[in-house]
Amino acid sequence: MNKNIPEPSVIRLCLIYRLMEKLENNGVKTVFSSDIGEILGITAHTVRKDINFLGEIGNTAAGYDVEKLKDHIHRHLGLDKGRFACIVGLGRLGKALLHYRPLLSGEYRLIAGFDSNINTLEMIKTSVPLYPSYRITEIVKDLGIELAVIAVPLEAAQEVTDRLVSGGVKGIINFAQVNVKSQAGNVLIRNIDLYGELRILSALLNLEEMVIRETGK
Amino acid sequence: MNKNIPEPSVIRLCLIYRLMEKLENNGVKTVFSSDIGEILGITAHTVRKDINFLGEIGNTAAGYDVEKLKDHIHRHLGLDKGRFACIVGLGRLGKALLHYRPLLSGEYRLIAGFDSNINTLEMIKTSVPLYPSYRITEIVKDLGIELAVIAVPLEAAQEVTDRLVSGGVKGIINFAQVNVKSQAGNVLIRNIDLYGELRILSALLNLEEMVIRETGK
Repeated sequence: MNKNIPEPSVIRLCLIYRLMEKLENNGVKTVFSSDIGEILGITAHTVRKDINFLGEIGNTAAGYDVEKLKDHIHRHLGLDKGRFACIVGLGRLGKALLHYRPLLSGEYRLIAGFDSNINTLEMIKTSVPLYPSYRITEIVKDLGIELAVIAVPLEAAQEVTDRLVSGGVKGIINFAQVNVKSQAGNVLIRNIDLYGELRILSALLNLEEMVIRETGK
Repeated sequence: MNKNIPEPSVIRLCLIYRLMEKLENNGVKTVFSSDIGEILGITAHTVRKDINFLGEIGNTAAGYDVEKLKDHIHRHLGLDKGRFACIVGLGRLGKALLHYRPLLSGEYRLIAGFDSNINTLEMIKTSVPLYPSYRITEIVKDLGIELAVIAVPLEAAQEVTDRLVSGGVKGIINFAQVNVKSQAGNVLIRNIDLYGELRILSALLNLEEMVIRETGK
């Protein structure tokens, strides 16, 4: 494994991996870098460059072998490594995520949920063990939880982050509508922002509409 | 407005816009392209190139004026243009999204929810009008809905997409764990994939751990 792969390449390789899973499920045997690029919205050159970070995968004149490429990425990025995850904030969104099937059986296993409201904890029916939020640091440390999903109101997001990081969490998916920071520095954070996604769609549509008006199509 | 801005630049400009909103709220007055780049994980050169697509914004030797840059992006990308949105699929996730505050008051106004189960529709308490899924095409057309959020099981995602597109939807946020396609071609689709985000975090952590092992830190 090449430890010097740039972060944007790792992210794109994960998207390519997901695409290979889907192509394999659909019975596709081979794929060209130009096809991958078109589906993911990047150039064929970038696709080849990213894949080359993983070392030799054989002649590509006839395209990549879908199954081989999938296994190649899986092995080189260590995607089979399991990790424990938790969810903090069990309001409507957090509760929905508690039932998100891939988290109950996949590599990233959900083994704890937290909420600051004891009544909320008592009302929820789930097979996932639930704890009050003041125990975050202790439980995260005891269970060896490395990944966390934050679904708390924005006012609480930073404090929750601090407690998670104190316990040893190394990666956070943040659904709260505010950016959180790790004081310690060494934590990966990815924000999921529905409103931001709608804004992007709207901006792209504005551009398209402008082109249509000008060309009269 | 420059209609030839590449899609990745539009996406990054929307992220820069969001960052400017936050900096403004925190009382920050000026910001350098290198700061923006560091927070968003891109180079300062890319930041300047993206911003330059929008035309002149004045001398940047002393950094960008946060408020000016925010307004500049807002105006040039047409972010003030309001659009109507709907949610399809009112299971746990869809129900949570029905209560997502920014969708009830922002530029992208949620004006319809759909589910195939009539009992589900009758049980939900919300101010958003709800309809059975067989009416998607008709309602989308009648109300002029342009944006849709899909939160249905993966088996139903493609059919729902087809109905939305027939009604005139132009942009889709897809939470279903499967890629959907527009048969007509001219529709923007953005996938939100929690499990994929966890996979990216895990791959990045694998790399870090390898570096730590090798350097003995």
